[in-house]
Amino acid sequence: MTPSTGQTHHSLIAGDPVPGTDGTVRAVDPALDAPTGPEFTLLDAEQLACATRAAEEAFAVYRKTSPEARAAFLETAAGNIAQEGEEIVATAMRETGLPEARLRGELARTTNQLRMFADLVRAGDHHGVRIEPALPDRAPLPRPDLRRRTLPLGPVAVFGASNFPLAFSVAGGDTASALAAGCPVVFKAHNAHPATGLLVGRALSRAVAEHGLPGGVFSLVFGRGTAVGQRLVADPRIRAVGFTGSRGGGTALTATAAAREVPIPVYAEMSSVNPVFVLPSALSGDRDALADGFVASLNGSAGQLCTAPGLLLVPEGEEGDDLVSRIRDRLTAATGQTMLTPGICASRLEHEKRLAGIAGVREVGRGRSGEGENAPAPAVYTTDAATFTGTPELSEEVFGAVCLVVRYGSADQLPSLAEGLEGQLTATLRLDAETDTGEDVRELLDTLELRAGRILVNGWPTGVDVGDAMVHGGPFPATSDGRSTSVGTAAVERFLRPVVYQNVPAALQPAPVRVDNPWNLIRRVDGALPAAG
Amino acid sequence: MTPSTGQTHHSLIAGDPVPGTDGTVRAVDPALDAPTGPEFTLLDAEQLACATRAAEEAFAVYRKTSPEARAAFLETAAGNIAQEGEEIVATAMRETGLPEARLRGELARTTNQLRMFADLVRAGDHHGVRIEPALPDRAPLPRPDLRRRTLPLGPVAVFGASNFPLAFSVAGGDTASALAAGCPVVFKAHNAHPATGLLVGRALSRAVAEHGLPGGVFSLVFGRGTAVGQRLVADPRIRAVGFTGSRGGGTALTATAAAREVPIPVYAEMSSVNPVFVLPSALSGDRDALADGFVASLNGSAGQLCTAPGLLLVPEGEEGDDLVSRIRDRLTAATGQTMLTPGICASRLEHEKRLAGIAGVREVGRGRSGEGENAPAPAVYTTDAATFTGTPELSEEVFGAVCLVVRYGSADQLPSLAEGLEGQLTATLRLDAETDTGEDVRELLDTLELRAGRILVNGWPTGVDVGDAMVHGGPFPATSDGRSTSVGTAAVERFLRPVVYQNVPAALQPAPVRVDNPWNLIRRVDGALPAAG
Repeated sequence: MTPSTGQTHHSLIAGDPVPGTDGTVRAVDPALDAPTGPEFTLLDAEQLACATRAAEEAFAVYRKTSPEARAAFLETAAGNIAQEGEEIVATAMRETGLPEARLRGELARTTNQLRMFADLVRAGDHHGVRIEPALPDRAPLPRPDLRRRTLPLGPVAVFGASNFPLAFSVAGGDTASALAAGCPVVFKAHNAHPATGLLVGRALSRAVAEHGLPGGVFSLVFGRGTAVGQRLVADPRIRAVGFTGSRGGGTALTATAAAREVPIPVYAEMSSVNPVFVLPSALSGDRDALADGFVASLNGSAGQLCTAPGLLLVPEGEEGDDLVSRIRDRLTAATGQTMLTPGICASRLEHEKRLAGIAGVREVGRGRSGEGENAPAPAVYTTDAATFTGTPELSEEVFGAVCLVVRYGSADQLPSLAEGLEGQLTATLRLDAETDTGEDVRELLDTLELRAGRILVNGWPTGVDVGDAMVHGGPFPATSDGRSTSVGTAAVERFLRPVVYQNVPAALQPAPVRVDNPWNLIRRVDGALPAAG
Repeated sequence: MTPSTGQTHHSLIAGDPVPGTDGTVRAVDPALDAPTGPEFTLLDAEQLACATRAAEEAFAVYRKTSPEARAAFLETAAGNIAQEGEEIVATAMRETGLPEARLRGELARTTNQLRMFADLVRAGDHHGVRIEPALPDRAPLPRPDLRRRTLPLGPVAVFGASNFPLAFSVAGGDTASALAAGCPVVFKAHNAHPATGLLVGRALSRAVAEHGLPGGVFSLVFGRGTAVGQRLVADPRIRAVGFTGSRGGGTALTATAAAREVPIPVYAEMSSVNPVFVLPSALSGDRDALADGFVASLNGSAGQLCTAPGLLLVPEGEEGDDLVSRIRDRLTAATGQTMLTPGICASRLEHEKRLAGIAGVREVGRGRSGEGENAPAPAVYTTDAATFTGTPELSEEVFGAVCLVVRYGSADQLPSLAEGLEGQLTATLRLDAETDTGEDVRELLDTLELRAGRILVNGWPTGVDVGDAMVHGGPFPATSDGRSTSVGTAAVERFLRPVVYQNVPAALQPAPVRVDNPWNLIRRVDGALPAAG
């Protein structure tokens, strides 16, 4: 049931509404630049502790759920969210300005992610079991019986993204992977889409109750951004953090986590310009298709995707000029879409102004502003390689449909241009797959793979496939911890740590490592995996 | 060739001796409390950068070595070290006071570790390959071709342990796992065993040269402890840190790493009291064997093992009294062994004095001091459960052969005693495996597994098996990052991060993910592993 405008709504702690004592907030309809939906009360720091205490209590039970119990719960959560799908999409449209088709797609991704993790939990590889049976006759020393598995870290604080109000918000990727690992979640609601968040949070809490799990497996807390967020990360009951947002926000939380008496890991996905290297050979191909694909990738979701291509490297010369002019043509015909919040729009305009003011940078073209508020025109700027190399600010992310085209003289320059880049979520090569197979391209690829989590050839970086092989991560500042992914099944590993049982008798062995393998897991024995099942 | 006393010796940067400009250091023979062996010049901070630059250059080549090339190099390193074994052991005896048998065992472990990682590199599972082939007909969107593998992080700074001058020093576990991952190593020599370190460093550098690898794959740097260590961790070319040492040292390096412009992971193994819970049922068994085993585990290597049992929980009552008196008898007959350095001995004596001065703590018994210098008597103290719970200092590690026996009233108290503990490398239960299978024991085990990296039943925590299933790690402050192990094959994972290739044409795919699988790796396809080899 949509949170109604007349009423005041509250945080959901362990399934129960808890009125906050630190004021209220309302969403803003960015297309109207006006408040929309009901009021939400905000928790103060002391009230937060109720959620983390409930999470800690729930952890003792939840971490031991069987694969079937945990998987069934995740599936029910997916079902409950799907059931509320119409209202969720309608509410999210009002709160975020994102179009219906995009939100329907995101809703499907959200429920699919939960189901994917349910499948993962049933298969159980994430238990990472390694067994070395006792070798009593080994010389010079006998080997004890060793049985290793992973354990969940404990309650996880998750901070959702404004740009994915479903797939990376309340029941999004971080929540799903933490729950799959066996960690309760305390979700800090995004105040830009509170009613959407509450609808999803209720669906998730309902699944917790329906499966007879302790309520503290999931809480949704509303609070004033920075202070409450910092307090949550500093809470000793929180054992890990998932975050999607700005570089400033992510690094502040990381610093707080590192300064704790017991430091904890923070997985913050922050900032990326997602360079696209157009090689000379790519210009001999279909330049119309190239311009179409680029403008679509840049403008999708008003440029508010973590993987939007903010940097396009194009050869100097006639063919390059032609590509840039085709881009300009498409851009001029494009209309700005409503951005997520007035604040994000203001920041985008400010960043664009700064970019436009840098010596050696000039505008290539711009589209039209959208009809509603907060819908600035998409824009492309250009500069030369020397200016780009000499101006570090040009490598900073502008969140929104703004791109910088860097014109380079020859392909020899590309590796050194790539070397100057910070860590990225993605890096893309546009090339001729038949001819571009030499050492020069390999060298560029070598440079890029050290700086990005995903390397694409002849694709566009937006649109992240959710599966077993995906890496949505990358070196700092793309993320705070490039050793992991926030999208796909491997995300579960972020919330686990190994423990080994030495000579623990069968009666006391936990299920994943028990001699009789009651959960039928694929287990590594003496360093080798068995034949597939 | 043993570094000779008359000469002055230097850091080995990329295989070449580089005289340091920041003074010199000599080892101290702890048994004589007198300088021993030659002088070693110390690098200043600027000179350090030569080592990190060489490591960065070497990384570009070394990270791409084939499994066979990298494995063969590790095997040669093992062989070179074994060849110098006699001199290494003799030198280490003089510099560390450790007995010959212990050092011979450690030498074997060191070369075995290198060979184990060579086997791992040949098998290649650490590439973590996951493939999802393209599904052009998938609805609603086609799936691109996705090929994930791991990449080494880059040059690693390793800080060796004083207590394992071979197996956790120059060519020890951290170095071996980083090299296996494809990361060059800059090793900060431990000034307590410089000649041992140089002998091993030369053997390793010789292997680098023999395999035609860039010299910067390995450097051994001598410098003043804290300043040079901090500088090394702050160097932007260093991408990860391995450390074994004190809690203070580890947390200082972790703070430096977190404050960098680009933060990096630190794997510091620091501090653990390794509690041993003697359950009431264990007292009905062979109390002589129990006392023997405990005293041997406590006194081994002068109590200077990370996993030495510094805390023994024993039931009150006659049988418990009897166990404690048997421990006292053995201890009184034991003789102190030479500790590693005068500094470590002084710190041990100071910690013991502080322990002895705490109200409610009394001495159970002590052995005799050893004949040489720095060989304090092993000692055991006791207190009751209430004093232990109320006095957090009693949970702090005393590095050396000093143990605290806590007497508890009934087994019901054990979970709450366990709950009060900080993170540990190990936790041990002594029990009757036939009868101790009930909920109470499970509850204790549940509490302990959340606080330790290794759980033992009816063993002693010292003696860490080096293999596929081992976890030598644990929650803070046992380590700075409980998500990993420093011992065993899984240690390689600490120095890797994933990257995925999307629609990268076959000609540009890196070997581990290439369609034709030239390295014959076990690869996960569509989420499933193939039948074993």
